[in-house]
Amino acid sequence: MIIDGKGLSNRLDRNMKIEVQALKKRGIEPKLVVIIVGNDPASQIYVRNKHRKAVKLGITSIIERRPEDFTQAELLALIYQYNQDETVHGILVQLPLPKQIDETAIIRAIAIEKDVDGFSPANVGRLFSNSHEHYPVSCTPKGIMTMLSHYQIDPAGQHAVIVGDSNIVGRPMGALLLNAGATVTYTHILTADLPSFTRTADILIVATGVAHLIKAADIKPGATVIDVGMNRDENGRLVGDVDYEHAKDVAGAITPVPGGVGPMTITSLMQQTLELTKVANRRTLKPVKV
Amino acid sequence: MIIDGKGLSNRLDRNMKIEVQALKKRGIEPKLVVIIVGNDPASQIYVRNKHRKAVKLGITSIIERRPEDFTQAELLALIYQYNQDETVHGILVQLPLPKQIDETAIIRAIAIEKDVDGFSPANVGRLFSNSHEHYPVSCTPKGIMTMLSHYQIDPAGQHAVIVGDSNIVGRPMGALLLNAGATVTYTHILTADLPSFTRTADILIVATGVAHLIKAADIKPGATVIDVGMNRDENGRLVGDVDYEHAKDVAGAITPVPGGVGPMTITSLMQQTLELTKVANRRTLKPVKV
Repeated sequence: MIIDGKGLSNRLDRNMKIEVQALKKRGIEPKLVVIIVGNDPASQIYVRNKHRKAVKLGITSIIERRPEDFTQAELLALIYQYNQDETVHGILVQLPLPKQIDETAIIRAIAIEKDVDGFSPANVGRLFSNSHEHYPVSCTPKGIMTMLSHYQIDPAGQHAVIVGDSNIVGRPMGALLLNAGATVTYTHILTADLPSFTRTADILIVATGVAHLIKAADIKPGATVIDVGMNRDENGRLVGDVDYEHAKDVAGAITPVPGGVGPMTITSLMQQTLELTKVANRRTLKPVKV
Repeated sequence: MIIDGKGLSNRLDRNMKIEVQALKKRGIEPKLVVIIVGNDPASQIYVRNKHRKAVKLGITSIIERRPEDFTQAELLALIYQYNQDETVHGILVQLPLPKQIDETAIIRAIAIEKDVDGFSPANVGRLFSNSHEHYPVSCTPKGIMTMLSHYQIDPAGQHAVIVGDSNIVGRPMGALLLNAGATVTYTHILTADLPSFTRTADILIVATGVAHLIKAADIKPGATVIDVGMNRDENGRLVGDVDYEHAKDVAGAITPVPGGVGPMTITSLMQQTLELTKVANRRTLKPVKV
């Protein structure tokens, strides 16, 4: 089974568009601010894609572009301004930042109720404590959970193996799966005999940035394989961290690259913007379902 | 090898006593406030033990006892008072709390720089993001890391298996081991075929509250086995979650119960009180080593 992230994200987008219209009729206008500092080419593309998706869904999107030599104090002031602005529901600072700016300090400056990337320590702590409140979560793992749910893959009691323990993907992914009842193994660059772990995975999440790291022989027959990788091969073709062509014959379900995790990440960012909008308007909207 | 938590905690306590004296000579008086609400008998013992240890080390210990019908608003007011009090370095609210009080709200009310139990979401988030700042950590896992370090057991590249994924022990334990470079597997009540995981563990941490859950056959020969359990058997004897008598012949290193993890937890609480004291007095003490 091929997990069609692109198709699912399209369906979710259509539903969100209707939901945004309904919110607007009630006088609530979801608004996302994306701040980009400097000229990193990949960041420019990511920010443009987020903006286009927001506009398509009817979410108000503000892009704040600042020059490469923007200071930390100036960036903090900009964030505080939007923290105070009650019409704004999500604030995203595109990473990486120029070297004169301390990313940690910036991430902490974002009000936790507008932290649409879910990177703030208080929100990370809620995730790892399996808090019962609503809290934002890093968008890629959130999108993967949505995919698993839509394909009726229940992590409870399954062995989930995470390859790559980054703060943006691997670590929050493991926490979400643990919260959903999976047995979770974190593997990474220091892991000895990686295949001995991946071969026992019922759900295998690969987020390493190493093209074709995971071969068919590293996969348990019938496993669900989620490939977060986005790498260029020698011919400039986009390839994942999993050798898809061979792995798809072993896996029970697998995400392609492109068209798998990628589209779900941006859709999750929009979903989360809507969730934060609804939480901020709880009094107007109750009961709120997020 | 028997890991002698009691002996190690005694040595660390002696060093701390000297350090407290040195701090006091510089006009810095480490102070811990422990708040206990109601009459839970186990909590009374824990609080008394913490108080005695603090007094023994020269740390000023204030116990605030409140009745079973104390309200959440009253408890919040008490916490805010100590948050404001610059002479106080650590605030600990003994759990569990009476049912009229929301534990989550109470844990969040403690100032993060005085959160000596490390349960606040912002501190949990720093732990799970492997932050480079100083932050307090749950005391039992902290004590276990200290034991591993003193016994020169380096988790880097080792497979650490956590049995029991509580917020107080299992989850932060896994994060500390992951931050130290281990491959980490979280197992729990929903884990299928638990022995298939425990048998692959180089470092096995057991924190389930089930007496003798882990047998010798569940342990990889030569593994380090850390037993967090404190259970009473049918004869009223204190026993761990590991069948120590048989396990000690298979394990490479193992903690006894009692005398293993238990004494280290309270010593870690005192160490952390000192660390928070030093961080609060950074200007006076620089350079501070925590």
